[in-house]
Formats: sequence, structure tokens, C-alpha cells
Amino acid sequence: MTQADVFMAQALQLAEQALFTSAPNPAIGCVIVRDQQIIGQGYTQAPGGNHAEIEALSDAQAKGHDVRGATVYVTLEPCSHFGRTPPCADALVRAGVGKVVAAMLDPNPQVAGQGFARLQAAGIIVESGVLAEQAYEMNIGFFSRMQRGKPWVRLKVAASLDGKTALYNGQSQWITSPAARDDGHLWRARAGAILTGIGTVKEDNPQLTVRAVPVARQPLRVIIDSKLSIAPLARILDGDATLIFSAIDNAEKKAILQARGAEVIVLPNAQGKVDLPQVIQELGRRQMNEVHIEAGAKLNASLIQEGCVDELLVYLAPSILGDARGMFALPELENLQDKFSLKFHQIKQVGEDIRILARFL
Amino acid sequence: MTQADVFMAQALQLAEQALFTSAPNPAIGCVIVRDQQIIGQGYTQAPGGNHAEIEALSDAQAKGHDVRGATVYVTLEPCSHFGRTPPCADALVRAGVGKVVAAMLDPNPQVAGQGFARLQAAGIIVESGVLAEQAYEMNIGFFSRMQRGKPWVRLKVAASLDGKTALYNGQSQWITSPAARDDGHLWRARAGAILTGIGTVKEDNPQLTVRAVPVARQPLRVIIDSKLSIAPLARILDGDATLIFSAIDNAEKKAILQARGAEVIVLPNAQGKVDLPQVIQELGRRQMNEVHIEAGAKLNASLIQEGCVDELLVYLAPSILGDARGMFALPELENLQDKFSLKFHQIKQVGEDIRILARFL
Repeated sequence: MTQADVFMAQALQLAEQALFTSAPNPAIGCVIVRDQQIIGQGYTQAPGGNHAEIEALSDAQAKGHDVRGATVYVTLEPCSHFGRTPPCADALVRAGVGKVVAAMLDPNPQVAGQGFARLQAAGIIVESGVLAEQAYEMNIGFFSRMQRGKPWVRLKVAASLDGKTALYNGQSQWITSPAARDDGHLWRARAGAILTGIGTVKEDNPQLTVRAVPVARQPLRVIIDSKLSIAPLARILDGDATLIFSAIDNAEKKAILQARGAEVIVLPNAQGKVDLPQVIQELGRRQMNEVHIEAGAKLNASLIQEGCVDELLVYLAPSILGDARGMFALPELENLQDKFSLKFHQIKQVGEDIRILARFL
Repeated sequence: MTQADVFMAQALQLAEQALFTSAPNPAIGCVIVRDQQIIGQGYTQAPGGNHAEIEALSDAQAKGHDVRGATVYVTLEPCSHFGRTPPCADALVRAGVGKVVAAMLDPNPQVAGQGFARLQAAGIIVESGVLAEQAYEMNIGFFSRMQRGKPWVRLKVAASLDGKTALYNGQSQWITSPAARDDGHLWRARAGAILTGIGTVKEDNPQLTVRAVPVARQPLRVIIDSKLSIAPLARILDGDATLIFSAIDNAEKKAILQARGAEVIVLPNAQGKVDLPQVIQELGRRQMNEVHIEAGAKLNASLIQEGCVDELLVYLAPSILGDARGMFALPELENLQDKFSLKFHQIKQVGEDIRILARFL
């Protein structure tokens, strides 16, 4: 590890603290270094609050440190545009720092190298590409939205080692361990939206909120409900706002659901089902960076078949269930070449279980 | 790592070279150390050849080193009984070594502390419990046979991430990568016997030999064939000896198979199937330390249900197959508490795939 790596790793650790609060902004961390000592640090505040660089500058000033000539390590190129807050690049110029090291360039077309250009024009040395991969992973949803115009979609499934998610009678509690369920809530927490289907709502009546970890805001809960058949008393409609996508319009039912705090969007495809790719696009328009899916085998399969899923988050429990429900209700293949191909991104033991992140190729 | 750990790790590495040849003896490694230098080393030779300690003593002597007073690191307590070779403990006493460090005591009731007792009686310092777990894992089959009177049974299965081993039309080639298949041959090679069922023989016509790694001896191939319906030209009957377990007697068919080098054992259970627990016992009587199973979903399920399997060796490929054949044709459960419980022992990425070792509780 180089010295730059060490300080960038610190900045990344700070960024983690913003993971559940910064959206739709990326979670960014920043440390300011002089004589190999960190003299200021910060991370992105909730929208409308300071960006990481401003937090770190304030921190240094509050502690009486002189930032002139210091080196700034930040996990993303400083912004150059006026959003909810003024450009960070300008603040760094005004502060008189000597060098800015960014983990990576900002893919936001409103920034895209302009932050660096502004710094360079002021005589500040700039450098990028330090721990870029970690920085990318931390804000993969933000980058997805900036580069592809749609969120990063992660589908979670918990199963036995033989790939079964529940018995046919519906029993599925305690397949995976408490550690895996808590870990699952961390992934829920970093998502802007949690998406499920009407089947899961009817069968499990879940809240789909983040409970195992403390959060300042709950993700938006999204329900795919082609026939708008959700029960008005479904627990998922309790608490914060929900968003229901249906394939049919029903003014009366809509009014009832709106009274329950739900927004209903009618978005049918040619087959009379909800247009799933359009759902993902709509969530992107609503500035969702990451969408977290917890649904049943049927909706899971439709989402995969319609190319809506970027990544699987699979928890495998140390058990065998035998003849039971599978992960994805996909049709039988005639040819192995037609399989869905993935790449294993990360494998980790979580409690007694295994957690696998796999990305679609 | 202590100094003893470092030398024992060397001895374990040597032991690995005996993994495919030492059976029915355990694969043992030995290094002799004087003044922190290794002056002799060796590992178990094929049955009838030298044990590791004798090899290490010879090596030291051939190099002109004086072993008197030296420390011997060996991955198992030296033997004290006359088997195919004379007791190693006596040879160490005669050589005048000063200290013997063993990874663990020998579970063989014919040794069981007697090797150490003999060394101590001659004034040699003894110590055990250094890297004991690694030493145990390396010879888990030998220890199983000594302690339980039956082999360690490992069931291999290769599947997609959603737990599917093949399409319904039988296509299963290239689900896992070449790296995983080569790794699978390493596990075949260390087993005394490879066991399969008549279903796999008929459908895939496999050789079930070790080909991806060089071996001096092929494992015994064992076929479960209740109705003795194997085709005399099946490829599995080519080459070295095979062992067929059937539930019915058929003198004529038996004669044909014997002419093909197969031994036929009739071992029915009350249901007219092959008595699988008795098969495992019989393989133990034939001094098999590890039994490696590669079979279809039906035989896999029967072996698990009848408590014959100690460990699963699962390769998961980065793909999704959807509606296809599962790993185990087990019946539907009414209650999750009736699931088969495992413990994940090891998780590793092998090429593009994941390898999971899971043990039944």
C-alpha cells in the first residue's frame, strides 16, 4: 500500500458513514493531509447539507489547522456545478490547498473532468485513480444512474445450499441465520428503493423496512401489482410512502390506496403486465441509485428475463431442503447455451451462511 | 507462527505428496531439524515402502548429517507396531534423536499413544498438537476408518447458482469450468473408491477415472446397480477393477461382468434395493479411507437419507438454469425442522466457480 492508498482508504471508510443518508448524492469521504497527518476529515451529509470536501475543510478550520498547501484525498472528483450546494472545486481553490487526489473522475456529465479542470486552472496539482475500484463499488448505483440513466438493480434471495427458498407450504423462516438477515438489512438500507411483488405482499405481508440497522430515512417501498389487488390494510402500506405499479387503472381502488399514502402508477406492457424495464427507468427518473429486490420466484424470473437485474445477492444456508420452491420460476431450457451467465463478484461467509454477489454478464 | 508451526507446515507440505499413493496408510510428512536447519525430510511411500520418518532418517544419513539429538517433526505420532514395515518409533530410538513433535496422536487403536510411550521410555522428549487440525483434515478418511470403522464419504455435485445440475434433456456439459473439473479430479485421486449409480452409468457412460492429474494408482470404481442391469460394454468396466453392488443375484450376468474384471456383491436391503450403509461398511473393510461419490439426484438422495454421506463437495457455476434437474431427489418436507443441516467447512473460488465443502451435522 502506498501512502496515497492509506489516506484514500481512510476517506473510503468515512464515505461508508454516508452510505445510508447521502442519496441521491453519492457517498463520498474526504481527508486533508499535511506533513503526513490528517488535519481534517468529513463525508457527504444528507441532501442539502455539505459535501465531503466542505466538511473536511470546516473540520480542519475548526481544529485551527492551516489547509493552505495541504493534500486533499477525496473518493470522487470534486464537483464543479451548482446543485443544492455551491461547487466544491471552488471551495478548494479558495482554501488554497496544494494538491487534490481523487479515487476516480465523476461520471456525472455535469462534472466529468470539469472539477479537475477548475482545480488545475488554479494551479492545484490533481491526481486520480487511487483505490478507484473500491470507490466505484461504494457508489455503483450513483454511477449506474449517471452513466446508464437507470439505477443499479440488486436482487436478493436467501436459499438452502440446494437452491430452495421455501417449502411448498410457504414455510421459509429461519432458512438463513440472524447474521444473514441483519446483513440483508444493510443492503436494504443503502438502496433508494425496495421492490417486491403482490405475491410476496399477499403471502408474507412484509413491512420491507430497514429495522436491523438504524437509519435516518427508510427506502421507498415499491410494489409490482398488475391487477391492483393489494389489500388496503397490507402492512407494507404502513409508515412512509409507497409506490405501486399496476397494469390496470381503477380510480376507486387508487383513491383508497392514495389515502393510505401510496402513489399508484399505471404502466402496462403489451401483455397486460406491468412493464418492468419502464419501472426501473421510472425509479431512475426519481433519482434512485440502487434498487433492492426481495420478491418471489415468479417476479424474480420476470425481472431477470426482461433484463432488469444487474446483480444477485444470494445467501446460502448450510442446509438441504429437497423438493421445495426454487429461486427463479424460469422456463425449462432446451439448450445449455441459453442459460443466464453471471460472474461471481464476491464470496463471503456471513454468520453460518455464505453470501454471494454475482453479476449478470 | 511459532518455529514448530513452520517446520510442521513443511512436514504437511511433504505429506501432500503422498496423498494419492499412501492409502490405505495415512499420508504423512516428516522433517528432521538441527540448529534450525532441515537436515532430512520424507513422506509416506506406497504401501510396503517406507513410512515418512524412515524416509527422513535415510535422507539425513544420505546427506551425511548426524541425526543424534535432532528434533523430528512428523504429521502423526510414529507407529509402534509391526505392519508391512517395522515400527518407526524403534527406528527413531535407534537413531538417537532428541525430540519428536507430532501434529497429533495416532487414532489407530494399534498405536494410540504407544508410539509416544516407546519414545519417552528411551528418553526422547515428545510433544503433540502442532497444526493438528490441518493434519487431521489431510487424513480425515484414515481417521474416520480408525475411529468409526468406516470411510469418510464425500459427495460431489456440480450445479448452477440456482442449484441445477443438468437440463431435463440430460445436457450438463460445461456447467462448471475446466478449473473446477480439474479440481474435482484431485478429490477423485485422493479417494480410495469412486462410487456412482447405474443411472449415471447408463446416461453418461463415464469412465470415472482420474485423468486431469497424474496418479500411480486409480481409485476402485464402485457401481450401485440394484437390478444388475449394467451393460457389459459400459466404459466404467474398462481398465482397472470395478466393484458392483446389486440387490439381486444373477449367475449368468455375474459371470459376464467378472469376465470384464468386475466383482459383484449381492447386498439387498428389506426394500429390495442395495443396502447403502452396508456398502459403506464393506468399503471400510476393504481399507478405503475416503469414498468419493459422483452420482445422480436419486442415488444422492438415498445416500443422504440413509446417513451415508459425511460431506458435500459442491461446485457452483456462475449461471442460472431455471427449471432443470436438482442436486438431490429428496421428498417434499412438511416442516422446515426436518431439513438436513450442514456446516460450511470451506469456501473457495476455483476458476470461475465456487467450491463449497459442507459437512452434515
